[in-house]
Amino acid sequence: MPRQRLSNNPQPDAKRRSPCPVACALDLLGDKWTLLVVRDLLLGRSRFKDFASSPEGIPSNILSDRLERLLAANVIRQKPAEEGGKRLAYELTEKGIALRPMVRAIRDWGLKWEPGTRAELQPVR
Amino acid sequence: MPRQRLSNNPQPDAKRRSPCPVACALDLLGDKWTLLVVRDLLLGRSRFKDFASSPEGIPSNILSDRLERLLAANVIRQKPAEEGGKRLAYELTEKGIALRPMVRAIRDWGLKWEPGTRAELQPVR
Repeated sequence: MPRQRLSNNPQPDAKRRSPCPVACALDLLGDKWTLLVVRDLLLGRSRFKDFASSPEGIPSNILSDRLERLLAANVIRQKPAEEGGKRLAYELTEKGIALRPMVRAIRDWGLKWEPGTRAELQPVR
Repeated sequence: MPRQRLSNNPQPDAKRRSPCPVACALDLLGDKWTLLVVRDLLLGRSRFKDFASSPEGIPSNILSDRLERLLAANVIRQKPAEEGGKRLAYELTEKGIALRPMVRAIRDWGLKWEPGTRAELQPVR
């Protein structure tokens, strides 16, 4: 599983802007799309087509790129989409589930300070 | 103060990707630099040169752009850098101070999950 080895890169500082944990987190998560994929995963979505059909309309090439980066960073992992099937889906790792407080803080700020927003995306049952 | 009028734009949805509060927050904050400026402001830094001298080395054209955007969004406002002086500095508005839980959540995640990070930037006394 070469992707998992990537997350154990022995020189994590090589590409970092600083040792600041905020800057390092933003190196991975600081763009308009990545945390929307994490949001969808937290809501129980797991398939490429699920992420692609979210209301923001993420372009499929950007979605592919972000999934690759999240896999490489060990924030998500692949799993079979259905038992015994060959198609793949995604799920959050422990590192990814730990993003929940961050996504909640962003949601809460948006709800309070951005007029007209609403948390209409519901968890998948 | 035309910038403040911008934040009262009567059609906030016009440029939005969705009404999701996470997506709307990321429309403003979702990049590698904006929240580092907010981090610096939360730590008590206030001058352009203070932000520019943070360890990540934000390019001055990007810093100018992000300050303009944060002003337009009413997340920061300008103030005199010293009493009676003409030079300007920046401070967080109530909307900007409300970003503290978000920045803390990002910091906490980085400290826990990104090896070698440390919260070495200290508040200005």
